[in-house]
Amino acid sequence: MENKSIVILGATGSIGTQTLKVIKKLQGFEIAGIVFGKNLNLARNIIKEYKIENYYSPFYPNYKFSSLEEFLEALHPDIVVSAIPGFDGMISSLKAIKYTKRLALATKEALVCAGPFIKKECKNNNVELIPIDSEHSAIFQLFDNFVERIIITASGGAVRDKKVSKLSKLTPKDILKHPVWNMGKRITVDSSTMVNKAFEVMEAYELFETNNIDVYIHPTGTVHGAVLLKDGTVKIHFGFPDMKIPIAYSLTYPERKYINPNWPEFSSKNFDFCEVSSEKYPVFFYGKSIINNLSKRIAFNAADEVAVERFLKEEIKFTKISEIIIETCERINEKVNSIEDIIEIDKFSREYARNI
Amino acid sequence: MENKSIVILGATGSIGTQTLKVIKKLQGFEIAGIVFGKNLNLARNIIKEYKIENYYSPFYPNYKFSSLEEFLEALHPDIVVSAIPGFDGMISSLKAIKYTKRLALATKEALVCAGPFIKKECKNNNVELIPIDSEHSAIFQLFDNFVERIIITASGGAVRDKKVSKLSKLTPKDILKHPVWNMGKRITVDSSTMVNKAFEVMEAYELFETNNIDVYIHPTGTVHGAVLLKDGTVKIHFGFPDMKIPIAYSLTYPERKYINPNWPEFSSKNFDFCEVSSEKYPVFFYGKSIINNLSKRIAFNAADEVAVERFLKEEIKFTKISEIIIETCERINEKVNSIEDIIEIDKFSREYARNI
Repeated sequence: MENKSIVILGATGSIGTQTLKVIKKLQGFEIAGIVFGKNLNLARNIIKEYKIENYYSPFYPNYKFSSLEEFLEALHPDIVVSAIPGFDGMISSLKAIKYTKRLALATKEALVCAGPFIKKECKNNNVELIPIDSEHSAIFQLFDNFVERIIITASGGAVRDKKVSKLSKLTPKDILKHPVWNMGKRITVDSSTMVNKAFEVMEAYELFETNNIDVYIHPTGTVHGAVLLKDGTVKIHFGFPDMKIPIAYSLTYPERKYINPNWPEFSSKNFDFCEVSSEKYPVFFYGKSIINNLSKRIAFNAADEVAVERFLKEEIKFTKISEIIIETCERINEKVNSIEDIIEIDKFSREYARNI
Repeated sequence: MENKSIVILGATGSIGTQTLKVIKKLQGFEIAGIVFGKNLNLARNIIKEYKIENYYSPFYPNYKFSSLEEFLEALHPDIVVSAIPGFDGMISSLKAIKYTKRLALATKEALVCAGPFIKKECKNNNVELIPIDSEHSAIFQLFDNFVERIIITASGGAVRDKKVSKLSKLTPKDILKHPVWNMGKRITVDSSTMVNKAFEVMEAYELFETNNIDVYIHPTGTVHGAVLLKDGTVKIHFGFPDMKIPIAYSLTYPERKYINPNWPEFSSKNFDFCEVSSEKYPVFFYGKSIINNLSKRIAFNAADEVAVERFLKEEIKFTKISEIIIETCERINEKVNSIEDIIEIDKFSREYARNI
């Protein structure tokens, strides 16, 4: 059987580099090409190490391809791994659907800001949409028609064991120490505000078409998700927090070909759960309350990106991130009929959030 | 669509009466007939309450049917629920396969003493074999080609929190207080010796064709089983210990139609696990060591039935149960080529165990 060809959008990021490692370990897959952003040094190393012939970056135009569309058109890969963070990732995911058979999706913003458009485009082009995120991959692996409720877990980020009264004093340095996952800066801050988890609830709402979603704080990150079935059965997805596992699954689905026989201990410390505090994570509850309002979700994402940037530059306090997001979302309430509408709401929200 | 017809073998027992309740709550199923043993009073109540027209007991020959075969031949039910305990249950399960499309199996002895014969008969007659036992149902619901190891849980029975040095002093009354499940007498004693769990490992070996099976003591009985997949993923089956759930699943599989939206709390007390003590449960480890020796498994079952009876009559101490079983099994090592061989080994083992 011929190898399946893969294009990675966002090859130099955390998901991108782990995807490269996974493909190296798997049989039957090959890298058709990579797309990267500004990290030219890392991209050069990857191109050399993995002997990659086709690559594209909007920041460093390559002689072969003048646009992402041209690049994808030339390669027509079996699978596109979509791992460009932020609003750009949403746009490139949408573009990629036309040129592949499977979209393995890590970019949260794709479903958060454009869920209905992404799903419609996948349906029209007969493209499989497979989530990469550990929580959604877990639910995707357990989901069936009899699910009544979904549970996903959250680390609680760096603020989990801090007092609410101390939150406003936390610096970027404090926040960037994440207890479980080693990730990019924005997503690490988003873990601490639980904006990240609000995004995941929005994504789960799009992927599994239910708003019956509960979130528990779970320090070890060993339980990724669970489904509660109508008959009283619960299926739980358990394992080490290692993104390579759901990345591999998104490539090999419906089979499993990744060999990694390491499982966490069956011990109660790996099954510690508690409720999410509305005092500590107010913006999470706000995010959960707007899951069926697409315009507010777009504003939520845009304002968060701006607010996190401002926090990382030490322009604002940690607790101000949530305030900026909520204030921006409250300003927005629109019908979203097109990608142009998304772009416009995104632009307006960023501008608004910058000036709060 | 026409209702699916069900015959219950062992209708007056714990599984039998719960099956009746489940069928009453489900739509699309009807009781074609029941088979019972000596409990005539309860059988009469059931026949009246559920308006059952066809029934059979070898102890109370009914005017309509002179044998189990004649009874099953007349009804040809879609599903036979096989819940007669002990060696008799094995024989009636084997007989039932010829007259149905699905064997929903609760009788442990069927797979323990005649696993290869039951499986072959099911295959030849194109009959689905669906386990009812909560642990096996859990694994059955989670199993796929990528499973590397199976985990099932054990309550540890009434001796779980007793000191090893006190075991020989325990009376039938002490032992019959089971911490989780409310079951028949023999199975409750078997829980405390963990003979029960050795049976389940043997059954899992037959059902899932692996000997990579681990058992953990788990006090709350909320985790029924788990599968460890080759890629590092673990799927866990969680829920209240309520036999009606796996009974319903065995009837409605591959769908779920039983409405019971009650799930245990996600709290670490529901996820407490510990290793099985070889000092406290020696016969469990012995049973696990003989899973691929069918003659010893037959002896294991026969000797246990005799030893438990002797213990319940207060002829022997609690710790003597294990000794009798091991001594009997050590005496046996035969090829098992037929049901007649099984019957002979069973008979010999009972005799032998009675005289130890």
